[in-house]
Amino acid sequence: MSNLVHALSRRGLLAALFIVGLGAGIASAQTSDPLPSWSDGAVKRSLIDFVARVTSFGGAEFVPPAERIAAFDNDGTLWTEQPVYFQLAFAFDRVRALSEEHPEWKTRQPFKAVLEDDQQALAAFGEKGLLEIVAATHAGMSTEAFSGIVSRWIATARHPRFDRPYASLVYQPMIELLTYLRGNGFKTFIVSGGGIEFMRPWTERIYGIPPEQVVGSSAEVKFEIGVDGKPMLTKLAQMEFVDDGPGKPVGINRFIGRRPILAFGNSDGDLQMLQWTAAGKGARFIALVHHTDAEREYAYDRQSRVGRLDKALDEANRRGWNIVSMKDDWRTVFPVEGADQGLR
Amino acid sequence: MSNLVHALSRRGLLAALFIVGLGAGIASAQTSDPLPSWSDGAVKRSLIDFVARVTSFGGAEFVPPAERIAAFDNDGTLWTEQPVYFQLAFAFDRVRALSEEHPEWKTRQPFKAVLEDDQQALAAFGEKGLLEIVAATHAGMSTEAFSGIVSRWIATARHPRFDRPYASLVYQPMIELLTYLRGNGFKTFIVSGGGIEFMRPWTERIYGIPPEQVVGSSAEVKFEIGVDGKPMLTKLAQMEFVDDGPGKPVGINRFIGRRPILAFGNSDGDLQMLQWTAAGKGARFIALVHHTDAEREYAYDRQSRVGRLDKALDEANRRGWNIVSMKDDWRTVFPVEGADQGLR
Repeated sequence: MSNLVHALSRRGLLAALFIVGLGAGIASAQTSDPLPSWSDGAVKRSLIDFVARVTSFGGAEFVPPAERIAAFDNDGTLWTEQPVYFQLAFAFDRVRALSEEHPEWKTRQPFKAVLEDDQQALAAFGEKGLLEIVAATHAGMSTEAFSGIVSRWIATARHPRFDRPYASLVYQPMIELLTYLRGNGFKTFIVSGGGIEFMRPWTERIYGIPPEQVVGSSAEVKFEIGVDGKPMLTKLAQMEFVDDGPGKPVGINRFIGRRPILAFGNSDGDLQMLQWTAAGKGARFIALVHHTDAEREYAYDRQSRVGRLDKALDEANRRGWNIVSMKDDWRTVFPVEGADQGLR
Repeated sequence: MSNLVHALSRRGLLAALFIVGLGAGIASAQTSDPLPSWSDGAVKRSLIDFVARVTSFGGAEFVPPAERIAAFDNDGTLWTEQPVYFQLAFAFDRVRALSEEHPEWKTRQPFKAVLEDDQQALAAFGEKGLLEIVAATHAGMSTEAFSGIVSRWIATARHPRFDRPYASLVYQPMIELLTYLRGNGFKTFIVSGGGIEFMRPWTERIYGIPPEQVVGSSAEVKFEIGVDGKPMLTKLAQMEFVDDGPGKPVGINRFIGRRPILAFGNSDGDLQMLQWTAAGKGARFIALVHHTDAEREYAYDRQSRVGRLDKALDEANRRGWNIVSMKDDWRTVFPVEGADQGLR
């Protein structure tokens, strides 16, 4: 019998440990903070409350997992967009890298301005000049070749002010939010005015967002059978879709095919996406990142040339949307330096 | 002690049952057929072998789950496309339904031909006539209104030959294949020449494919704030993207952003998608559904006006792609009648 008693007591001990363990697990789940880089303020409470409501099975505001679509702008919402959109910094770097093959650029604008780092001249060329630069650096090659160029740039180029890789200038609180939402059955999408082929090579590794969940602006692409008999997709210079402003709800409709229940932006280019998301039935979470932190990042809104936040700020105030003050709502802005080692 | 012994023996019994149950589960998993509607032929063996190779962790041909992208044409590959594409049957039904609001259609072509069911006249108008009919029936309303119209039609309209709801004319072997692939970590996509907004209202329920995994042709959509102050997306008549032929790899690049490792089509409109998929590195599964079964479905290929299979059949033979003979490879074609009750 002693073996039995022994076995029993071992079982009893294991059961007791198991129960204690379970209890500790529950206690830890209840007390651990899914958003540690967010200050305990109104926005964080509102976020956690929203997720609890839409995931409460049987609750009045329950949303089935398949419909838990979350849409995030990229520039200024998931990563920094100053002093210029990072894709533009990439394009300028490409002009420099390609300048040996293009000696005519030394005397031809807007390329001359890039090569001479003449910001004032560049600004004067406006959007037309920038589009010319993008066309010259983003087209005339296969989609795979372009993807490789982007991957190499993102792993090596460094931001002028922070002297860190661009991809390490993502917002730690937003990374936590993406993870938190996915852990609660959400499907997270990027809906950005940036180029779709510029984002896809790295969004999965940096944000956990796969290529098929990236919506963005795009140029035409052409299918052809190459001289080697292999099919290829060639990037052309003509723009095909601009995923900005009213283009964002159009892009959401085209790529996702259903309305998000959560949307995050930071500028007037996000206004229509937020309006479209807010107008759906049932619980909604609408938010703007307000850049209020000149010390740790940047402070800008109504007067900024990049990422202007004016009309969308008025609308957010009028409708009671969430406004995230970077200075007050975020304990941390960027991941710690060591965390970006993998990118180099 | 007897209580203890009793308790122990109950535990022992439960444990024994549990172990037996596990064993049975494993045995059943090993012997149960994931593709019961497929005949035990070369194609089925090749399919199961392919899935085993790409999912064998540590194997030479292992593909991480995120890259297990499977692309399926819809018309003629996942459901019937004869005697006309079902979307065209829908458009003709819409012309009839809207004819009271459009008395001028009684004398105006190509609408007159639809109202008089004059197939010969319709054929003479060709693609231009069909596009006019599609524009008149698919545009000038909100995306949500259109989705509702499609949902009602798909639940009620019946196929002229089979007298069954159109959505019940999906191929049972392909439904099994989609389920089998998803069970093995694949993400299944539709890549169809059909209208994206015509498919999305029902693909999730019928195929288990959510709207964001449907790639198709589309017309322009415009964002506007309605008179009631609510944002809306209005469908316009201009085509925006034709996801057919060389448009299919372009659509895959635009919507999915990575190359599939498995692709299934049935006509020349799928050729470039199959070429693009086949040209990737690593294990690939490329297949055509060949309509060889006039009795249970239809028999057609090189001479057919709908779903012509000519060049792609030559290429499949030349390259050794899988050719599924509907007559020989499929034990069942459609789901049993009772299975479509939910659609009515």
